[in-house]
Amino acid sequence: MIPILSIVGKSDSGKTTFIEKLLPELVRRGYRVATVKHDVHGFEVDREGKDSWRHKQAGAHTTVISSPQKIALIRDVEKDFTLTELREKLIQDVDLILSEGYKNDVQPKIEIFRTEKHKELLCTKEDNLVAIVSDKEFDVGVSCFFLDDVKGVADFIEKKFLKSKKEEGVTLKVNGRTVPLKPFIRDFLLGSIKGMVRSLKGCEKPKKIEIQIED
Amino acid sequence: MIPILSIVGKSDSGKTTFIEKLLPELVRRGYRVATVKHDVHGFEVDREGKDSWRHKQAGAHTTVISSPQKIALIRDVEKDFTLTELREKLIQDVDLILSEGYKNDVQPKIEIFRTEKHKELLCTKEDNLVAIVSDKEFDVGVSCFFLDDVKGVADFIEKKFLKSKKEEGVTLKVNGRTVPLKPFIRDFLLGSIKGMVRSLKGCEKPKKIEIQIED
Repeated sequence: MIPILSIVGKSDSGKTTFIEKLLPELVRRGYRVATVKHDVHGFEVDREGKDSWRHKQAGAHTTVISSPQKIALIRDVEKDFTLTELREKLIQDVDLILSEGYKNDVQPKIEIFRTEKHKELLCTKEDNLVAIVSDKEFDVGVSCFFLDDVKGVADFIEKKFLKSKKEEGVTLKVNGRTVPLKPFIRDFLLGSIKGMVRSLKGCEKPKKIEIQIED
Repeated sequence: MIPILSIVGKSDSGKTTFIEKLLPELVRRGYRVATVKHDVHGFEVDREGKDSWRHKQAGAHTTVISSPQKIALIRDVEKDFTLTELREKLIQDVDLILSEGYKNDVQPKIEIFRTEKHKELLCTKEDNLVAIVSDKEFDVGVSCFFLDDVKGVADFIEKKFLKSKKEEGVTLKVNGRTVPLKPFIRDFLLGSIKGMVRSLKGCEKPKKIEIQIED
């Protein structure tokens, strides 16, 4: 599962600017990063008159423009998706998801804080705050980094979020909900399914098995 | 699995215009449709200076803007994705995927043809052509519809592509590749996994089971 980390902070704290400095450092270290920006007011990205714009105007729920270099997608939603939902439905092929904002989501957060702009922190440890990036130090039980310490923050992210991705894992979802598995059940599922799959032609070395059953 | 259908035709045959007429008819019948437009030359959708544009410029592999009404996503790719790959990675929550173009993809196709513009059909039955929409009739072994017969085409699509979505299905992927399952293996997998899952607390009535195993 792709780890999610939110960069939060009051308005004008410099979230986008910090993300602009952090991204090249993570990319330099070989990671692929997706960013998510929350826009509660709605936005316009497509251009009037383009074929994709015409499809959307004519009632398409989702419109995709695909080229050999990049893909763009615009889709309708009935509600504000959580970061977990965005990961599940749309985000693939990356090592980390960095959101700008999403203070109220359950994901771990790094807060950007500037003394010249604000008096108090936006988040506490109860909000799943894991670090603060600021021009002053805080004693609130989480790691603190100075605003220009992009390398330090990248080290922290790498250590805390990017090292665990190599574990062997079994995920079981029933009716869309992830079912927690005790070690015994986990090993039982793992053993039986791997055993069955290995007996199929061409599947002798399964690295990744995905099964979906619908009633 | 969401069915895919391509609307193909030589340039200037009126593909976008036909899709613009077909979409409202399918939406009126209660279907959610995604459209895919192939753009081999690259395109620009995001706007300079916006936060999401700044994320992408700073090296984000994927950038998402999420609002309570709609979501936009822009991501890098290393190659031209097939329609099946687009479905697998990005398209969810719809009943049908309609592509504009993708003549060389394996998916079923409806060709738009105008005698005033072209002399010969672009596709044959070997290209998985399933219907022709034109101002003349063809005797090539596929259904023919007149250009203004949007209802007829919608009936055809509904009957051929939208009725089979209620079947119980098992999908098995090993190392990212879908493994074809003979009925016996399919029933064996279905029976054993459902049996195991039903014995777990709270999973007595599994409607949808998803298992992912990674080495």
